[in-house]
Amino acid sequence: MCEHGLVPKIVDHEARRGEIALAVRRLVAREGLAGATVRAVADESGWSMGAVRYYFASQDQLLVFAVESMMEQVTARVLRIRERMPAGPDRAAALIEQLLPRDAERRAECTVWLAALARARHDPTMDELRHRAWAGERHLLALAICDARGVAVDFVRNEVPERLVADVDDLQLRVDGATLIWTNMADQVRGRDLSMTVRNWVEDLAG
Amino acid sequence: MCEHGLVPKIVDHEARRGEIALAVRRLVAREGLAGATVRAVADESGWSMGAVRYYFASQDQLLVFAVESMMEQVTARVLRIRERMPAGPDRAAALIEQLLPRDAERRAECTVWLAALARARHDPTMDELRHRAWAGERHLLALAICDARGVAVDFVRNEVPERLVADVDDLQLRVDGATLIWTNMADQVRGRDLSMTVRNWVEDLAG
Repeated sequence: MCEHGLVPKIVDHEARRGEIALAVRRLVAREGLAGATVRAVADESGWSMGAVRYYFASQDQLLVFAVESMMEQVTARVLRIRERMPAGPDRAAALIEQLLPRDAERRAECTVWLAALARARHDPTMDELRHRAWAGERHLLALAICDARGVAVDFVRNEVPERLVADVDDLQLRVDGATLIWTNMADQVRGRDLSMTVRNWVEDLAG
Repeated sequence: MCEHGLVPKIVDHEARRGEIALAVRRLVAREGLAGATVRAVADESGWSMGAVRYYFASQDQLLVFAVESMMEQVTARVLRIRERMPAGPDRAAALIEQLLPRDAERRAECTVWLAALARARHDPTMDELRHRAWAGERHLLALAICDARGVAVDFVRNEVPERLVADVDDLQLRVDGATLIWTNMADQVRGRDLSMTVRNWVEDLAG
């Protein structure tokens, strides 16, 4: 632990926090919110309970952090997609899919998000986080709608222009419904292709 | 408690179970799943902890019962609507609204349902209940789609004919998305009218 006192101890806080967040997401996905105790997170991440507690004094803080790190991951993926793919319906679908539980990693993110939402109902300290996530989701969907229609984006981050509001409202219902169903009732939709479903939404929006 | 030993003690089990279920729904809506302890349910319902335990040995059983009683309530409301309203788009909207958190009672039902779904992910003993709820929801949506289009219902309970599957799939996404949003992010949709939203879906389906 003390590195023999010879080498100055350099801790990469960001990397450590990232590892801990990943452990939280994995635990919540596997065992539910109740499974993400400080002890379990320490076991899962390979860090000591002291190290975990250094960043997060309580289970609530762990959950908030897991949601924040999930939002950062989604944002990073969205930026990469917008840099690397040309505008158009394929990119629209790729953007929307960043919010959906289409693989194990995203399923873990969605589980954390749904657990946090249920918790936030009774915890006003989570309002700011919840509002930020809401605005971020709607901005992403507005970007996707522009791509689906082949029109330019003329609005700034976390803003949805009036002309897109009704479409964002409807697309968000579908996205949130799919999040709930593919996360919590995956066995019921085993025969349904989530990517194909997103494709249909994009075609709807273009038409 | 003993009625002086003179009058034979007649317990209306159904009524008592109903009162306890209502207390569970209220508690879950107000305080989350963790709030529905046997003690809190006893306080809320006015029954003794012994009486509550007579029906439900554990908090898990309370939750399962709350979901079952919610499903019975929805079914009863749906039957009443189909008896009293003529077929058509108005009835379609009324049917769909039975699943949505449009008032305090239904918001409590939806909170219980979302909590149960999250729990069911990690509890296979709840699979049967979850599958029953899924089939019931889809049957109700198939009935609503027939009403929206003015076509006769030619299928039996818990069956969705092949020609309606794609429409039921899409309507269910919207319904489940609206359930999640209007239950857990009500402050974000304060200006949006849920009934008007359902109306738009019904028009979409008819068109």
